[in-house]
Amino acid sequence: MNKQEIQIKIAKAVEIVKESKPLAGSITNSVTINFVANAQLAVGGTAAMVYLPDEGETLAKLGGAMYINVGTLLPIYEDTLPHTAKVLFENQKPWVLDPVAIGIGSLRTKVLEQFKPYKPSVIRGNASEIIALAGLWNLEGGTDTSTVHGVDSTVSVRTAKSAAVALASWTGGAVAVSGEMDLITDGSTVAVSYGGSEMMTAITGSGCSLGGVMAVYASVADPFIAALSGASVYNLAGMRAEQHTDGTGSFQIAFIDELYKASAQDISMNEFTLEEV
Amino acid sequence: MNKQEIQIKIAKAVEIVKESKPLAGSITNSVTINFVANAQLAVGGTAAMVYLPDEGETLAKLGGAMYINVGTLLPIYEDTLPHTAKVLFENQKPWVLDPVAIGIGSLRTKVLEQFKPYKPSVIRGNASEIIALAGLWNLEGGTDTSTVHGVDSTVSVRTAKSAAVALASWTGGAVAVSGEMDLITDGSTVAVSYGGSEMMTAITGSGCSLGGVMAVYASVADPFIAALSGASVYNLAGMRAEQHTDGTGSFQIAFIDELYKASAQDISMNEFTLEEV
Amino acid sequence: MNKQEIQIKIAKAVEIVKESKPLAGSITNSVTINFVANAQLAVGGTAAMVYLPDEGETLAKLGGAMYINVGTLLPIYEDTLPHTAKVLFENQKPWVLDPVAIGIGSLRTKVLEQFKPYKPSVIRGNASEIIALAGLWNLEGGTDTSTVHGVDSTVSVRTAKSAAVALASWTGGAVAVSGEMDLITDGSTVAVSYGGSEMMTAITGSGCSLGGVMAVYASVADPFIAALSGASVYNLAGMRAEQHTDGTGSFQIAFIDELYKASAQDISMNEFTLEEV
Repeated sequence: MNKQEIQIKIAKAVEIVKESKPLAGSITNSVTINFVANAQLAVGGTAAMVYLPDEGETLAKLGGAMYINVGTLLPIYEDTLPHTAKVLFENQKPWVLDPVAIGIGSLRTKVLEQFKPYKPSVIRGNASEIIALAGLWNLEGGTDTSTVHGVDSTVSVRTAKSAAVALASWTGGAVAVSGEMDLITDGSTVAVSYGGSEMMTAITGSGCSLGGVMAVYASVADPFIAALSGASVYNLAGMRAEQHTDGTGSFQIAFIDELYKASAQDISMNEFTLEEV
Repeated sequence: MNKQEIQIKIAKAVEIVKESKPLAGSITNSVTINFVANAQLAVGGTAAMVYLPDEGETLAKLGGAMYINVGTLLPIYEDTLPHTAKVLFENQKPWVLDPVAIGIGSLRTKVLEQFKPYKPSVIRGNASEIIALAGLWNLEGGTDTSTVHGVDSTVSVRTAKSAAVALASWTGGAVAVSGEMDLITDGSTVAVSYGGSEMMTAITGSGCSLGGVMAVYASVADPFIAALSGASVYNLAGMRAEQHTDGTGSFQIAFIDELYKASAQDISMNEFTLEEV
Repeated sequence: MNKQEIQIKIAKAVEIVKESKPLAGSITNSVTINFVANAQLAVGGTAAMVYLPDEGETLAKLGGAMYINVGTLLPIYEDTLPHTAKVLFENQKPWVLDPVAIGIGSLRTKVLEQFKPYKPSVIRGNASEIIALAGLWNLEGGTDTSTVHGVDSTVSVRTAKSAAVALASWTGGAVAVSGEMDLITDGSTVAVSYGGSEMMTAITGSGCSLGGVMAVYASVADPFIAALSGASVYNLAGMRAEQHTDGTGSFQIAFIDELYKASAQDISMNEFTLEEV
């Protein structure tokens, strides 16, 4: 695909979402769960969140795609998360994995290991998380030393390129590395999306809610287009929101407004570049 | 009661809440728990949220009313929810039930069945949820086929009228069907409240927080007045908030502002009509 | 220390936080968890929230300080909370305890009793909570009768002075009593911080998020300075936010903006008085 073909696909994905309001259920952390839901609604999707195994299964079958974020694990997640991922895989439903804070705690490690055969359609994380996940799954570009510090990445986006490519090659889907720019790859093509705002790092949940929005788009588009559409609307909304706010509280509100107002045309035209792996 | 008598009762309920700050505890979903608390505080109430069985019992006895929302069930809810509902019923404390996403998962069905003998004072849901609950409780107007899609209703408010009347006749309380307008009935009278905003469907939690606000009013007024007072302040605040916002982020903030600023007089005068069952 | 020395230390603590972005992990209630994280980020810290025992241990060791709030207890907290507090104490990591709604439920009482030997560096609560905790720990100024009503204090800040001093003498740290003004003591000196806004009582989480911010400061300053720095930025931001808002929704947003914008100089100069115990 050349750039123009990609832009047309992004615009189409955004439009279909606005018209059809697809359901993308989530199992996600309690810190940013409200932001995830409101971001999904703002771009036109439908949100629903659950904790229990059979409810995860129901949402997996009912929705067009699903978002799984391992941010704040509860004991029941030991059952819910692998079971839901398995159902998603077996039903060929696209799903987005957010390996938040990989390296903290034994259940997180266990669950993330269990996800490997269920091949998430999109993996979204910061550079440290993507490198650590590739390491956990014994893929190229990974590392067995977690460099994750809380939820912030300590390394640059570019550093995670080979890990991202290896993960995408394994899953057959896409990987999105979030940071000062966003690197999205399907294992053969790499897109780099530009824009955003420094303030996105000073609010909680810009990464989580981006994962939720990618799941909305994944219900109507292939993983690479879904991930790039999500990164594009986030970078666009971040730039716009920053222009009329001077604090992080009002930035977050303006950011949701801009997600809501962004047109398919504007999102598809947000700056990105293409490169070979 | 004629319309004017109802308006006087609404105004009185709103004023008593603003003066006495009654406690309405909640067991509610994690997606919108913050919005529920802030909406309850905005109209003048006091909020407290719990998860554990004995804490549910304590809040049930301590507060003037309680709000129970089955949105994001946790394993402990198998104990907490029926026990708390039983305590509320035995202590003749008013409580509001929000049967969110009825039909998803086995625990949700089990718990909602267990609630039947504990007769919630107010049941609030969208049309699909009200029809499904009437069906689950084998009442007139219900259906055994869940038509619930995520948390959105797929049928119109009017369609749920007979289910709402049947539920209210069973509980002896009130039922509120939320949607393009709000239908509230105590089983003999039906009130239809108008106003609101399209944007209320594009944010998460406008339904949940309305249930929480109805619980606040239920601590000082009968179920029908409590439900209609809640619907009235929501429809008023929605209309007003929409006038000075162009995105869903700022709409939600303006909406809480308008809940906080709405006077007893204005709330009681928000448009509604009365009809016989 | 005289007043000027304290002001210099406050300014230094605020500056170090803005430069070093210290991690202060939290185990906190689901109602206000998002507000806690965003407030911590707004003042320059890094946030991470967990529920599980080994994750609590990891965060305790990884972060500069930690925040523990017993607001919405889950069953797993029976293991997580005492274990995490023990690890914090043994590793000499500062931690902030928020004994929210002390008196409600058996697990809350049990956990709060277990915390006594692990001496929290800062205890933050309203007057009722501080008096009740001193009572639970059999210290001077406490009471065995819980007067807690939901999460609101029913007694004035001054009433809790002797309980606060007794708690601080026991822990060797600081105690902060929040209310119409904030009383902070290390057991020998008492500081009273002024400012804030009536609207802070009409939103949920101003107390919780203050505790989280105190934990951020506790990672770079002694408990007394950390608590006073937190109270100072909250009182300053409350006053400023109130000036350009007329509802509680926009107040909360403006409040986070003001946390983000407040300079070290302005925070250190916010009004406070000193008195002997």
